[in-house]
Amino acid sequence: MDKKKALEKIAQRLRIHSFKMTSKARSGHPTTCSSMAELAACLFFDEMRYNIHDPYDWANDEFVLSKGHAAPILWAVYAEAGILSQSSLKNLRKITSSLEGHPTPRMKWVKAATGSLGQGLSVGVGLALSMKLAQCPRRVYVMMGDGECAEGAVWEAANTASLLKLDNLCAIVDINRLGQSDPTMHGHNLDVYKRKFEAFGWNAVKIDGHSIAQILTAFRKSRESKKPSVILAKTIKGKGVSFLEDQNGWHGKPLKEEDLHKALDELGPMPEINAKKYVSKPSKISPPEWRRRFHFKRNTYASKTATRRAYGNALVNLGQVNDLVVSIDGDVKNSTYAEDFFAAFPRRSFEIYIAEQNMVGIGIGMAARGYIPFIATFAAFLCRAHDQIRMAAYSFSNIKLVGSHVGVSIGADGPSQMGLEDLALFRPIPGCAVLYPSDAYSAEGCVESMARYKGMAYLRTTRPATPLLYKKEESFPIGGSKILRRSQKDVAAVIAAGVTVHEALKAWEELKKEKISVRLIDAYSVQPLDGKIVKEVRKAGKKAVVAEDHFRRGGLGDAVASLLKGSADIVHLAVDELPRSGEPDELLNKYGISASHIVQAVKKLVQKR
Amino acid sequence: MDKKKALEKIAQRLRIHSFKMTSKARSGHPTTCSSMAELAACLFFDEMRYNIHDPYDWANDEFVLSKGHAAPILWAVYAEAGILSQSSLKNLRKITSSLEGHPTPRMKWVKAATGSLGQGLSVGVGLALSMKLAQCPRRVYVMMGDGECAEGAVWEAANTASLLKLDNLCAIVDINRLGQSDPTMHGHNLDVYKRKFEAFGWNAVKIDGHSIAQILTAFRKSRESKKPSVILAKTIKGKGVSFLEDQNGWHGKPLKEEDLHKALDELGPMPEINAKKYVSKPSKISPPEWRRRFHFKRNTYASKTATRRAYGNALVNLGQVNDLVVSIDGDVKNSTYAEDFFAAFPRRSFEIYIAEQNMVGIGIGMAARGYIPFIATFAAFLCRAHDQIRMAAYSFSNIKLVGSHVGVSIGADGPSQMGLEDLALFRPIPGCAVLYPSDAYSAEGCVESMARYKGMAYLRTTRPATPLLYKKEESFPIGGSKILRRSQKDVAAVIAAGVTVHEALKAWEELKKEKISVRLIDAYSVQPLDGKIVKEVRKAGKKAVVAEDHFRRGGLGDAVASLLKGSADIVHLAVDELPRSGEPDELLNKYGISASHIVQAVKKLVQKR
Repeated sequence: MDKKKALEKIAQRLRIHSFKMTSKARSGHPTTCSSMAELAACLFFDEMRYNIHDPYDWANDEFVLSKGHAAPILWAVYAEAGILSQSSLKNLRKITSSLEGHPTPRMKWVKAATGSLGQGLSVGVGLALSMKLAQCPRRVYVMMGDGECAEGAVWEAANTASLLKLDNLCAIVDINRLGQSDPTMHGHNLDVYKRKFEAFGWNAVKIDGHSIAQILTAFRKSRESKKPSVILAKTIKGKGVSFLEDQNGWHGKPLKEEDLHKALDELGPMPEINAKKYVSKPSKISPPEWRRRFHFKRNTYASKTATRRAYGNALVNLGQVNDLVVSIDGDVKNSTYAEDFFAAFPRRSFEIYIAEQNMVGIGIGMAARGYIPFIATFAAFLCRAHDQIRMAAYSFSNIKLVGSHVGVSIGADGPSQMGLEDLALFRPIPGCAVLYPSDAYSAEGCVESMARYKGMAYLRTTRPATPLLYKKEESFPIGGSKILRRSQKDVAAVIAAGVTVHEALKAWEELKKEKISVRLIDAYSVQPLDGKIVKEVRKAGKKAVVAEDHFRRGGLGDAVASLLKGSADIVHLAVDELPRSGEPDELLNKYGISASHIVQAVKKLVQKR
Repeated sequence: MDKKKALEKIAQRLRIHSFKMTSKARSGHPTTCSSMAELAACLFFDEMRYNIHDPYDWANDEFVLSKGHAAPILWAVYAEAGILSQSSLKNLRKITSSLEGHPTPRMKWVKAATGSLGQGLSVGVGLALSMKLAQCPRRVYVMMGDGECAEGAVWEAANTASLLKLDNLCAIVDINRLGQSDPTMHGHNLDVYKRKFEAFGWNAVKIDGHSIAQILTAFRKSRESKKPSVILAKTIKGKGVSFLEDQNGWHGKPLKEEDLHKALDELGPMPEINAKKYVSKPSKISPPEWRRRFHFKRNTYASKTATRRAYGNALVNLGQVNDLVVSIDGDVKNSTYAEDFFAAFPRRSFEIYIAEQNMVGIGIGMAARGYIPFIATFAAFLCRAHDQIRMAAYSFSNIKLVGSHVGVSIGADGPSQMGLEDLALFRPIPGCAVLYPSDAYSAEGCVESMARYKGMAYLRTTRPATPLLYKKEESFPIGGSKILRRSQKDVAAVIAAGVTVHEALKAWEELKKEKISVRLIDAYSVQPLDGKIVKEVRKAGKKAVVAEDHFRRGGLGDAVASLLKGSADIVHLAVDELPRSGEPDELLNKYGISASHIVQAVKKLVQKR
């Protein structure tokens, strides 16, 4: 059969599947599937190379559905390709099915969860970079919607793709003119999109997104481009059904039974074609032989050192034993100390400039190809990527995040630079490990633990140098804690982490002079918090003082309160106001988390009946 | 004196101040101040109109220092203009001074805290929009760095400015070629910036940023432009000091004493000029007579209604009595129900398209001119603006945020659309009120409370309809709670909010059948949580079950644990895993927060000794 004819038939099958599936599920977005049916048919049944028997085949081209609400047509694609059974499509959005409302990697062919718009292009950049890094001659395709091009993250990704000359990246924008609540910003004005992408260094071609011939030509040109390329496809939302075509008000609405019958009548019978025959299998490519160790040589420290400094040192040594470790920076590598990794491993180091969303999105893409990205910036600026971090969790992504310059202890730069909400950001994420070392050796130990851990992990590092507390080579497992001071006479426990551990040690000395003995716990694993702390506090008079350099809510204090619930009395020292510029010690004191405050809190708590 | 000569002298004074101030403070960013000295001199001592006696004068032109790390030169400007004493400059970054390391509105002329890069342009858009809305013929100037143009948020703002034809907005990009750790993305290639801004619909002019003549011409052209305009200024970082000029490695480094002497020798003596004489006072303009009431007419509900639906209704009625209320949407107004306000008050309604960072930035700008912006989107997508929300707090901004579609109760759309971390995002922010209504009447009451509140407030709304629980006109003060069931025989308390209140009511009925009496508390004010809950729980057997449709950590459970610490035993029901698509009831059940789970939890807790 003529290829164009075949692809037209496949497109129509995908379209019909999408309408049926969403009506069956009684929710979903059929009209936005319909607009991209020809694009999907050409992409998956002519352009791309993939091994239907292995979603992780190194030789596969990769795909990201950035417009995640079009999930039904993606499931239809995989059914037509023989990856899913046709009957599984009727389980769309059921609690028992991996064919969710928006894609997640519960369905194995999905490399990143999407559904929060404007994130897919960064993931595509990460996938394309991974291929370049491993010299894998494969391509990455990202299907975007026009509405999501209003998200700044798209332009962050566009910058990186052109700067890094990712000629193996092809974006397709399904410009169907209509958003959720109204027409999109630029409607069907494809020239504006073209000017924007070209200004950001891309090759851009405009096509009729329902013309198989134009789509195939565009993909061929894309393969020949020396730049990343974008196919700007003018399409009709609800294409193929007269009462839906180009009509506002149908976003996210499945057809009710009567409307579905009308639509199916217009679309005609399901075309007869065996789409599987049109899937192209890639030629075999094997991944490189990577070193994949996690135990790295520890550095020796002679005097007090910032945990961020130790992080930088550890990452270099980890990089020596593990080829999959890569470093991603947003122009603060001289502050986070990622710069040493950049110097040691320039090929595995990526300067993304000041674009935190994109840093995380790229990390998700690289992790999906097996890399272990360490993404570091000021903790405060990780807030910028909160949505990408959230989606990384739904992607079950093995990314490692590092936030430096936490808390008021950074000093004079002022509140905009202080990470005071980062624990509240990371603690809630199911499966995310949150580590907060207090000295150089614990920082190195935490780096090994987070590298070993399969899943998202967050390391919180401090700006000022802190004294050494632990032994070289000491291990800091996720979910552990360290008892720094303990006696039979303890009348209270002090629970601290990071910089407040050192305040707590000073407080311990003060209290000792007054013959008040307290147990001192370094809760370096903020999440999961060590369950043994319950017993320790019980043995220390069922009283605890928690001190942290973080806003009062969402951090270590909440974690301890939830762990100890009902079993101990607690005083919680934390930052209660919007802080200001000043010297680190002044600020620790002003915001009530210094040694003297811990001393007072212990005394008050112990005197309490 | 010749104007150009005078401005040159003022520029040199600003430059010398910046070097001296940062050396005195022993921290700060003098080289990035030096690159913008001529731009600042022309802007504040020729172009802008402002009343030095009143930072809130309605007739002032407005300024945003998006490159917040250049704060010292801004303080120097205000000292030269006669707003600050010259001697106050030596207090830069001191804990007692409002001249912080990065600008915050503790210094009254600052309209928005900056220092997290790429946010200022959205604030500028908000200020410019406010002027347009009130027909105030004034202008807004935003000083940006080149490095921050990598942030996507800049391009979100650029879109809105051109779509809304903000000809009263002028951005200046100080293109000094060097970022913090390395050269910027495009170095001194001004053409790339020009292409980008033009593609986004702006007028762009390239100039030598150290030429007073070129700067003055550029500002004049900007005033004549019918589009928003950007001045792309090629500058030299460290300008004026030979060993600093265009050198990498000097970002964020003050000069030590010896280097300072060398620099001051090169810069020459402080030029003699009375800069105050060059400040232009604006002609008087009075703001409109606004209606500013907060008590609005409540709607009547006959049957179960979604709280998001009630929010939409309430906002319209609030808009009838308060002209300062404006609505900002990111293409989900038909889901959040902001669409009714859009229909009723089109002039006060702003479609920002899918760009949440920009929505919040614009809100900060509008709030700085007295408006009360209600910014609504899916709660999950507010994560996208976490950094802007954080900076809004440091701006002491009176913005109101509304997150709809919270929790697993949204059902089949799947995890990417479920707000399960929003309480953890908003609770930590000092001064932010967090309200979570459970029925239509409480939603309306919460809207009034948040509108009245001076400061940031967050309203959490639910997708499915919920039964009516409260009376029309009932009030829901911030920091309150409602006791829905209470008896002398209560053996435990159930604390819920939003959708779980209804599960708790079902559980109460079940437990009653088994003669187990529990107190039922609607903790609609999640932050601040009602302190009276401590007493209620004490009277209900010192046992509490908390149930919430949110991830386990960072939400209501943590809040209750921190409030009750030591005084009660607590069982906490919350979402523990990364959830999936399904029906709302299936999901409430699967993730352990339905009525039957509450029943089981109460029984287990009560049986416990």
